[in-house]
Amino acid sequence: MNAPTTPPPVKTEFDVVGTTPIRKDGEEKVTGAALFGDDIHLPGMLHGAMLRSPHPHARIVSIDTSKAAALKGVRTVITGADMPTLSSTVVAAGEGGEVNMQDIADNCIARDKVFYDGHVVAAVAADNKHIAEAACALIEVEYELLEPVLNVHDAVAEGAPVLHEDYTPGAFLFPTQKALPNAGRLFMEHGDVDATFDACDHVVEREFTTKSVHQGYIEPHVTTAVWTGEDTLTIHTSTQGGFAIRDFMASFMNMPMSKIKVVPMEIGGGFGGKDVVYLDSLAAVMAKRTGRPVKIFMSRSEVLRGTGPSPETYIKVKIGCNNEGQLLAADLYLLFEAGAYPGGPIAPGTMCALTRYNIPNVRLDGYDVFLNKPKMKPYRAPGATQANFAAESAIADLAEMAGIDPIQFRLTNALKPGDMMPMGFPCPPLGSIEMLNAIKNHPHYTAPLEGENRGRGISYAFWFGAGLASCAEIRCNTDGTINLTTGSADLSGTRTTLGMQAAEELGVDNDLITTNVGDTDSVGYTFQSVGSRTTFATGIAVISACRKLVEEMKKRAAMEWEVEGSEVDYASGVFTLKSDSSKTLSFGEICGKADHTGGPLIADASEFPEGVGFQIAANIVDVEVDVETGKVDILRYSTLQDVGKAVHPDFVEGQMQGGTVQGIGWALNEEYFYDEKGTLRNPTLLDYRMPTSLDVPNIDCTILETPNPGHPYGVRGVGEVPIVPPPAAIRDAIKNAIGVSLNDLPMKPGNVLKAIWEQKGK
Amino acid sequence: MNAPTTPPPVKTEFDVVGTTPIRKDGEEKVTGAALFGDDIHLPGMLHGAMLRSPHPHARIVSIDTSKAAALKGVRTVITGADMPTLSSTVVAAGEGGEVNMQDIADNCIARDKVFYDGHVVAAVAADNKHIAEAACALIEVEYELLEPVLNVHDAVAEGAPVLHEDYTPGAFLFPTQKALPNAGRLFMEHGDVDATFDACDHVVEREFTTKSVHQGYIEPHVTTAVWTGEDTLTIHTSTQGGFAIRDFMASFMNMPMSKIKVVPMEIGGGFGGKDVVYLDSLAAVMAKRTGRPVKIFMSRSEVLRGTGPSPETYIKVKIGCNNEGQLLAADLYLLFEAGAYPGGPIAPGTMCALTRYNIPNVRLDGYDVFLNKPKMKPYRAPGATQANFAAESAIADLAEMAGIDPIQFRLTNALKPGDMMPMGFPCPPLGSIEMLNAIKNHPHYTAPLEGENRGRGISYAFWFGAGLASCAEIRCNTDGTINLTTGSADLSGTRTTLGMQAAEELGVDNDLITTNVGDTDSVGYTFQSVGSRTTFATGIAVISACRKLVEEMKKRAAMEWEVEGSEVDYASGVFTLKSDSSKTLSFGEICGKADHTGGPLIADASEFPEGVGFQIAANIVDVEVDVETGKVDILRYSTLQDVGKAVHPDFVEGQMQGGTVQGIGWALNEEYFYDEKGTLRNPTLLDYRMPTSLDVPNIDCTILETPNPGHPYGVRGVGEVPIVPPPAAIRDAIKNAIGVSLNDLPMKPGNVLKAIWEQKGK
Repeated sequence: MNAPTTPPPVKTEFDVVGTTPIRKDGEEKVTGAALFGDDIHLPGMLHGAMLRSPHPHARIVSIDTSKAAALKGVRTVITGADMPTLSSTVVAAGEGGEVNMQDIADNCIARDKVFYDGHVVAAVAADNKHIAEAACALIEVEYELLEPVLNVHDAVAEGAPVLHEDYTPGAFLFPTQKALPNAGRLFMEHGDVDATFDACDHVVEREFTTKSVHQGYIEPHVTTAVWTGEDTLTIHTSTQGGFAIRDFMASFMNMPMSKIKVVPMEIGGGFGGKDVVYLDSLAAVMAKRTGRPVKIFMSRSEVLRGTGPSPETYIKVKIGCNNEGQLLAADLYLLFEAGAYPGGPIAPGTMCALTRYNIPNVRLDGYDVFLNKPKMKPYRAPGATQANFAAESAIADLAEMAGIDPIQFRLTNALKPGDMMPMGFPCPPLGSIEMLNAIKNHPHYTAPLEGENRGRGISYAFWFGAGLASCAEIRCNTDGTINLTTGSADLSGTRTTLGMQAAEELGVDNDLITTNVGDTDSVGYTFQSVGSRTTFATGIAVISACRKLVEEMKKRAAMEWEVEGSEVDYASGVFTLKSDSSKTLSFGEICGKADHTGGPLIADASEFPEGVGFQIAANIVDVEVDVETGKVDILRYSTLQDVGKAVHPDFVEGQMQGGTVQGIGWALNEEYFYDEKGTLRNPTLLDYRMPTSLDVPNIDCTILETPNPGHPYGVRGVGEVPIVPPPAAIRDAIKNAIGVSLNDLPMKPGNVLKAIWEQKGK
Repeated sequence: MNAPTTPPPVKTEFDVVGTTPIRKDGEEKVTGAALFGDDIHLPGMLHGAMLRSPHPHARIVSIDTSKAAALKGVRTVITGADMPTLSSTVVAAGEGGEVNMQDIADNCIARDKVFYDGHVVAAVAADNKHIAEAACALIEVEYELLEPVLNVHDAVAEGAPVLHEDYTPGAFLFPTQKALPNAGRLFMEHGDVDATFDACDHVVEREFTTKSVHQGYIEPHVTTAVWTGEDTLTIHTSTQGGFAIRDFMASFMNMPMSKIKVVPMEIGGGFGGKDVVYLDSLAAVMAKRTGRPVKIFMSRSEVLRGTGPSPETYIKVKIGCNNEGQLLAADLYLLFEAGAYPGGPIAPGTMCALTRYNIPNVRLDGYDVFLNKPKMKPYRAPGATQANFAAESAIADLAEMAGIDPIQFRLTNALKPGDMMPMGFPCPPLGSIEMLNAIKNHPHYTAPLEGENRGRGISYAFWFGAGLASCAEIRCNTDGTINLTTGSADLSGTRTTLGMQAAEELGVDNDLITTNVGDTDSVGYTFQSVGSRTTFATGIAVISACRKLVEEMKKRAAMEWEVEGSEVDYASGVFTLKSDSSKTLSFGEICGKADHTGGPLIADASEFPEGVGFQIAANIVDVEVDVETGKVDILRYSTLQDVGKAVHPDFVEGQMQGGTVQGIGWALNEEYFYDEKGTLRNPTLLDYRMPTSLDVPNIDCTILETPNPGHPYGVRGVGEVPIVPPPAAIRDAIKNAIGVSLNDLPMKPGNVLKAIWEQKGK
């Protein structure tokens, strides 16, 4: 994450970018033709099932698989003892930083200890899923129960049970350091925080909590592993990136990367939860043992118990300003669950909490806390939603305390291009002032809001986004049509947005381009579809490949005219001889002549862009609180986002709306219920309450476009930041509706009612 | 097919090329893990079956599909009337030249006339294959029978029934011209042939016939078509080249090439018979109508009745020499079956017949004859086996008549590098003299042969081979392993031989490279695996991609040393700073640093090589003839071939042995039996007699290596020419054994006995 060096010129006039063609994968998804992971059926294929621990913390004394193995139709039974020994433990690809591969491996199947309710202890491959499940029920596991650690405060308290005698602290965007027995730490301080608080006119201190929420992708995890001979492994799976799975598996199986092929199937949602291995290692080991393909899929309950949600957090905020509303100091103490193994989203959460304001004196003290819950995972702007809820709510309260208009307060303190950032470089172009003014001038914000128990809230949010490696390959057909291959799993229509960038760059009709997601054998290494990076970073690779293609095509045209390639111009689908503009050849004509001018027209590009454009967003929300029940209804919702350049504005709105609705889920409904024994009590979508279309109004979208100089068209990542602002905005609206401050997520009826009663009791 | 222009230097010292590593696809094929076309199982998939005409020539008066359509489980029934109308009729990709696409389409399913026994008239897609077959039996077709044309002489006779009122003559390597009502013609003449015969001391005139033989691939044709939405078609099929199928289908369905994806599955043999569409168009139309995937496979009987074998031929040869054995004139008249539609292998057959000898006066008069048999197809050196049998047998007889040693006779007349070729350019480097001397000095040739009714024969053969378009893409992984993708279907271990060329060029261990066959969305256009072109032409693309990769890696090393790429040397896996040889970086180290030096390391290349190295081969064979039964046993067999450079000598031997055995099948056993009604009477492998391992001795192989300057390593195509010499060599051996000349293939016991009796009767 470095600052962009010399920004190249950004294009501002577009033919294709900014239009809204039909989504390339739309029809096949609505008709059922699209192939998802569970659509794989191979000759001789076995079906897997897992036995999961009912205990959150226990030592495995013994596992007797003999009865299971003896069941007719069972082909193999494995436990953690059957997994390969890792030759190296640290690999970078998977989770955006260095992670301990042994942890990821052990999270797939426990070796000697189970660390959470739902931790896999054994797996079976059998002739069908029913036999595999019946066999799991025959496995006898003797556990020695250990005291579970079930909340962050207990975990960091002195004398807490130690989960890992030794551990590698996780790294996610920013590295954490080894700190407490059950935690890694990220600590940053600049200025004199404590002394400055004494000089502040107004200081707010608040404690906030948030609960674990799941990404809630509709499609459960599913994978099929095939040993294709000569120690070559093929995996068909639902993933946000085939190469990450390939590289994890290369570590797990001690195999060369080249011997593993991962075929990314269509994906029914990921949101950060499908960038890691859960089933692949089990399926691969069982496929190797049996010599037959093995498919495993999870039930919904397994998804909720056994995969990583976003962590529960505790965040203490102290923040102060002067009478003019200038922020002077902030002190944040953050406890984020890491779950069973190090590496939760503490680092981006901590770094994002305040990175949209200029504050001269700041202390950030974040902890990645291990406890007996699933290993926590990224979920759309990982950690930022929790941190924003806390920091932005404190900011709102501080503005109120200082008696300053909330937008003016934010304008006074807004991080602007050129301001020094906590990461140590000046803020690149960012429409922060434009964004805050856009709230102020928004027809929603200026509209009157009448009625009892109704209130309007706002919030403002920031997220980094990611650059990282991407490749693209482009090929012309002799009929003038074009095939584009990238390695980016398509979570959100990126086949279309990448194809549009190709059409724009080539100056051809968008319909001529077909975009394909390559498997790991068929395209250059491309980092996962995470960090809102696909349209941005893979887009840059696509544009680079197109530029190389045009150069090659100029040479082909030059060959026809017996001149040098430099003597040929190209624009809007037509090659022209510079010295005689009556001589032209169309894009399609050059395609048709490929064989006779040297062979097929192809080009590739590999990029590792560094000019990531940061994402900012804001919300305006009107709510009505039913003070009898505590239920909060959303009356009107507006979300604003600076996207740099909207490649496909409808898809951008889709991301904004989808992220907002998920943020509303965080704010009002969603949470993991663990009982006192550490058992998840709501592992179904009946009990785990996600918003439905009936719960939310239309989400009105305002797209701002401050070009990102790190992308030729000014594109920023889009997908993540929309989830961040809703909790703080809704808290603000509730406070304005009924004068009650809610500092704990979700702001569900019970919590709201409790707060109302507490206030009344005062 | 142009002469190479400026031959680049050819490498002569090798590390990897010339070794015999394990075949990359070996284990998965012997364990059954490899996925062939019939291994595709998709959700909701339907199964197809075809109704075929029992008549060789008839007009379709009406087809009533109502009963079939009403059968429970039937999802659609189609006839020729349901096929799309072609918007253009001429496309190049499929068969090595311009072909009439309407003919190819009509060969898949008849429109108004059926042209051969087995011609498809209707197809059904149903819930399973049994229902589909039952439905076919319910289809009622009313035919108006037409007089069938069943042999080439009848077809070209005056007053013959005309198959096609209008036709486009086929083009296969060389174009034919519209000639007789039922034939296209290729005519070439130079010198004064007729006058020269008068001046010859010895003239031989012979008539030869050969029968239709099938390529005999073990795997029947199979295809699965899927409409994946938005008018996008995916086809999983057994083919010698995905792009050919894609481009055919783009014509048939009036679709852009970019909207069709063809996934070439593993292929169970092709030999020229799997470069065209039979089932794909039927499956695609039925998939489109039903909205469900449709799989169709052929039975063995359908393969033999409905796909294209190599044609039956009649060849009249007149050839003369002087007393010194110098060939002076030749006159060939060739009638090759085209089958139901124009475009059989008459052109290469005609052009190859004599193109290994210098003859000053030559007339070649070849006919591509339409008659009521399946549309004939290429089969390994298409047309050359028939032509060589005729011409080489005549040469043998002429040498005998002139009283000149057969090898000396060939040496006297051999085409040598620099001699002008019939194609109008000088012969490129070719080991013709070396080859003929290699026969002479071969331990088999010099060994005594004793015993009654035993004889030794020889023959000498030539084949062109093909260049055409190929692409390759290469990618380094961070662990130093390498993935290579090409678009060439792997018929014979070419994943291995292409990977070896990459390892050779990169100077790395061969095990580091994994080679993958891309689908048509995942790699640049690559012509089919035909014409012995894969290791040659795709190999050139691989080497080019490797050279680009090394240049890019030099830049990466230079970045580390803060110099220009030109200041870095590379050899044998090590990058060295030219100015300070103590500074080195290994190939793997550069791979590991890719992300920090600009992104993943990838390179691609597109080639259309013109320097095709011609193929020559020779045989020595000993036979024993059972004069009581006419059965010919092969006692000893040696085959010699100039391969330029043997990339993998074991695979080369495999090609030589496989081709030889097929040639033995042509010589002794294989033939299509059509009865007088035009019905194929031996459409099973019980009745169609291919040689088995019990029929042939070990085939001893001698590899000669005269480098082809058109390939950086001197490689020539290998796969085709070995099939060509056996019939002439075995005829020669039989003649030397019992003094009987056999001019009709196959030289099966009945024919041999008949010839013996005819001679005795004299």
